[in-house]
Amino acid sequence: MSKPTIGVIGMAVMGKNLALNIESRGYTVAIFNRTSSKTEKVMADHPDKKLVPSYTLTDFVQSLEKPRRILLMVKAGKPTDAVIDQLLPLLDRGDVLIDGGNTFFEDTIERNARLDKSGINFIGMGVSGGELGALQGPSLMPGGQKEAYDLVAPILNQIAAKAEDGQPCVTYIGTNGAGHYVKMVHNGIEYGDMELIAESYNLMRQVGHLKPQQLADIFSDWNKGELSSYLIEITADILTRKDDHGSDKPIVDLILDKAGNKGTGKWSSQSALELGVSQSLITEAVYARYISTFKDERLAANNILPATKLPQIKVPADFTEKIRQALYFSKIMSYAQGFAQLKAASAHYNWDLQYGEIAQIWRAGCIIRAQFLQKITAAYHKNADLDNLLLDDYFKDICDKYQDATREVVSWAVQSGIPVPAFSAAIAYYDSYRAAVLPANLIQAQRDYFGAHTYQRVDEDGIFHYPWYEEQ
Amino acid sequence: MSKPTIGVIGMAVMGKNLALNIESRGYTVAIFNRTSSKTEKVMADHPDKKLVPSYTLTDFVQSLEKPRRILLMVKAGKPTDAVIDQLLPLLDRGDVLIDGGNTFFEDTIERNARLDKSGINFIGMGVSGGELGALQGPSLMPGGQKEAYDLVAPILNQIAAKAEDGQPCVTYIGTNGAGHYVKMVHNGIEYGDMELIAESYNLMRQVGHLKPQQLADIFSDWNKGELSSYLIEITADILTRKDDHGSDKPIVDLILDKAGNKGTGKWSSQSALELGVSQSLITEAVYARYISTFKDERLAANNILPATKLPQIKVPADFTEKIRQALYFSKIMSYAQGFAQLKAASAHYNWDLQYGEIAQIWRAGCIIRAQFLQKITAAYHKNADLDNLLLDDYFKDICDKYQDATREVVSWAVQSGIPVPAFSAAIAYYDSYRAAVLPANLIQAQRDYFGAHTYQRVDEDGIFHYPWYEEQ
Repeated sequence: MSKPTIGVIGMAVMGKNLALNIESRGYTVAIFNRTSSKTEKVMADHPDKKLVPSYTLTDFVQSLEKPRRILLMVKAGKPTDAVIDQLLPLLDRGDVLIDGGNTFFEDTIERNARLDKSGINFIGMGVSGGELGALQGPSLMPGGQKEAYDLVAPILNQIAAKAEDGQPCVTYIGTNGAGHYVKMVHNGIEYGDMELIAESYNLMRQVGHLKPQQLADIFSDWNKGELSSYLIEITADILTRKDDHGSDKPIVDLILDKAGNKGTGKWSSQSALELGVSQSLITEAVYARYISTFKDERLAANNILPATKLPQIKVPADFTEKIRQALYFSKIMSYAQGFAQLKAASAHYNWDLQYGEIAQIWRAGCIIRAQFLQKITAAYHKNADLDNLLLDDYFKDICDKYQDATREVVSWAVQSGIPVPAFSAAIAYYDSYRAAVLPANLIQAQRDYFGAHTYQRVDEDGIFHYPWYEEQ
Repeated sequence: MSKPTIGVIGMAVMGKNLALNIESRGYTVAIFNRTSSKTEKVMADHPDKKLVPSYTLTDFVQSLEKPRRILLMVKAGKPTDAVIDQLLPLLDRGDVLIDGGNTFFEDTIERNARLDKSGINFIGMGVSGGELGALQGPSLMPGGQKEAYDLVAPILNQIAAKAEDGQPCVTYIGTNGAGHYVKMVHNGIEYGDMELIAESYNLMRQVGHLKPQQLADIFSDWNKGELSSYLIEITADILTRKDDHGSDKPIVDLILDKAGNKGTGKWSSQSALELGVSQSLITEAVYARYISTFKDERLAANNILPATKLPQIKVPADFTEKIRQALYFSKIMSYAQGFAQLKAASAHYNWDLQYGEIAQIWRAGCIIRAQFLQKITAAYHKNADLDNLLLDDYFKDICDKYQDATREVVSWAVQSGIPVPAFSAAIAYYDSYRAAVLPANLIQAQRDYFGAHTYQRVDEDGIFHYPWYEEQ
C-alpha cells in the first residue's frame, strides 16, 4: 500500500463513513481514534480496505504523505481544541488540518488565525447529508486558506455528492470561518423548510381533516413539482409508515411533539440579529421548536386558555393547492432572507461569497437539496450583485402568482386557531420588504421623544432633533 | 460641606443628571470626568449645589466617605473597563462600584467576579427613563452583592421614581448580572410595545385612512383605558405635532422611516435564543427595525414586487376598537414571553428573580411604564411560581375577550398587504402555547429519518429510533 494521502481523526459514524468514502475513490487513508478499540473495530469490519490504523497521534502523523492532510471529525468545542493542541507540535509548516465538525464559525475564525501563525493551514468545512451522505456523497462547504483548499480539492471533488448535471457539490467558500458560516445558514434554512412543512401538514390535518395516508399522497404529488426536494420526499415516506411496536397506527401519531435541536438554527438567528438583517422565518422556526418542548405547560394551557369563537372557516375545494402555493411562496421568503444574510456576512467578514455557487453545491447531498436551488443559481448568474432574491424575475413571478394564496392560508389558520408562525413571518417579510413606507417614522419619533436619539427627514439631509419639550 | 457620601464618574448628560438627582435629596456628591472641562462646566452651571469636583481619580477617590460608593456613568465596553482598571489600585476592600451604563449582562457577570477577588463590590444597575428620568426619578434595576446593595439602597430609594402608591421604583434584583439582564429584557419589551403601536398606527392610516390628528385623538382615548402608558401617551402627543421647519405638515410625515437601535433588543432576542425560550414578538420588532433601514431596497422592491390582488377588505365600524383590543392582547403576549424569559434566565443564572417586584419597579420612571404592570405584580403575588402570565385569571380573561379581534385584525392586514409581524407573532404564540398537539412530531420524525436524532413516544417512556431504511 502507498503512504496515506489523507488521515481521519475520530472514528464515530461521520468520521468512519467519510474515511470509507475517501477510500472508495482509490485513496489510502490513515485513521485514528482516541479510544483504540474504535479503530480496531473499523479495521475488523473493513479488512479489505486501504485503511492504515495508528494507535498514537505521533504514529498517525508520521504515517502521512507530506504536506499532510488531516480531517478532524471530533466533537465541536473543547474536544476539537484538545486534539489540535496535541497535533500542533507534530505538524510541519504547510500541513492542512480540516475541521469537518459542526463548529461555530467564530471558533473557526479564531483557530484559523491561531494556527496560521505556525504556518499550519486550517480549513473549517461544513458537511451536510448525515451518516448516509458522509458515506455516499455529502455536500461540502470548505473555508480557509485558498492554497490549502487547492491541496485537498481533488479528494473533496471525488467524495462530494454529484448534482444531476454531474457537478460535485463542493466549492471553495472563502477564508477562515466562511465554510462553517455557510453550513450554519444551510441548517437555519433547513429549520425553516421543516417548520413550513410541519405547518402545512398541521393545517391539512386540523382544518382539512385529512389522514396521514392521504397526506402522504399529497406530499408525494408535491414532490413531482416545484417543491421537489429531499424533505418533501421523506415527509411523504414518513406519513406512510406504521408503528414499529406492533400497532396499526401511523408512526407519526405515536411520536411525541417535542422537537429537539442541535443549536445551528439558533446560531444562524443570533448571527442575523448581530448583522442587522431579518431572518424572521428561520427564527420563528427555532422558536416553534422551543415552544413545542414545553409540552406540560401546553397541556395545562390547553385546559385553561379559550379557543377562538369565530365561526368555522369554510375552506375552498382547492384548499391543498393553496397550501402548496403558500409553502412555495414562504420557502422563497426564507431563502431570500438566508441569502440576504449571507450577503451581509460576506461584507462583514470580507468573504466574497459566491451565492450562485453556494446554491449549486446544495443541489445534492445535503438535507435542503431541492430542484429550485437551480433557480437561485440562475438568478445570481444573471446578476451577481442582486440585492435580494425577490427582485429576480423568476422569484418575482412566483410572488405574483402565490402571494394571495398565502394570504388566504394565513387568514384561515389565524381564524381557526392553528399556529402558523413561519407562514405569517413569510407574508410579513414580503409586505415589509415591498413597502415604500413603513411606520418606522413613528418609532423614530418616539425614540427622539424619550431619548433624544434624533432622526433623518424625508425632505432634507442631516440629523434632526425635535423640540418636544419646548412650549408649543 | 460634609465628606461626599457618593461619587459619580462621567459627566455626560446621564451621569450629570443622576449626580444632580442625588444631590437634590440632601447628599454631597463627588464628581469626576476624564476631560476636566466637563466637570468645570457642571460646577459653573450649578454653583450652589453640594457637588465636590476632582480633577484626578486619586483626589476623587480620596474625597469619598468609606466604604466608598462610586457610580460609573461612562460608555459601556472598553471605556468602562479602562476606568475600572484605573480605579482598582485606589480602592479598599468593601468599597462599592456601581455601573449604571447600558452594559451587556455577561460583561457585568465577568466584572463582578473579577472585582470580587479583590474584595470590591460591583453592582450592575439598569437605569431607565432617559435624561429626564435620570434627573427627576428613573426606574433602577441593581444587581450584585446583596450587602453592597444594602449600602446604597437608601440613596437609590430616594432618587428612584415613585409609583402612584409612593413605592420607589427600585429593588434588589439579584446577584452579579441580574440587574443588567432585567434592564435588557425591559428594553426588549420596549421594542415590542413600540412596534405594536407602530403597526396599529399603520393599519389605521393605510386601511382606515385616518389622519395624524384623528389618530392623536384615538391614542389619547386609549391612554385613558387599559392601554394607559407612557408610550401611548407620547404617541398621542407626537401625532399632534407640526413640522418645526415651517411647513404645516405633521412632523411624523417628515421623519424618515428608518428605525435605529442601540442593541439591547438584539441582546434580548439573542439571549432568548440561547436559553431556549420564545421571544418571537420582540424579535419580530427588532427585525422590523432592521428591514426599515433598507429604505433604498424597499423603494426598488416597491416598484417591482406586486401588491395583493385580493378584493379590498371592508373594515367594520368598530375597526379602531378591534385594533385597540389586538394591541392589548398582543402586548400581553409580549410580556408573557418576556417574563417567561426572565424565569428561564433566573433558573440558568441562579438569580432567584422576583417577577412581581420587577413588574412593580417598572410602574414609573421607565419607558414601558404602564398601569397594567400592576396586573402582573398581582398575578405573581397570587402565585409566585406561575409558569406563564397567560395562565393567570386576569390575563386569561383578556385573551378570551380580545383574541378574536386580534384574529380579525391580522386577517385584514394580511389580506390588505400591510405588514403586521408583531401582531402575527402574538397570535401564533397564543395558538402555539395553548396547543395540546403541535406538528413537532413530524419534525422529530424528519430529524430521526435523516440524522438518526431519535424521538420520544406518546405511549411509552424511552428514546426511540425508527428503522426507516429497513425493508418494509
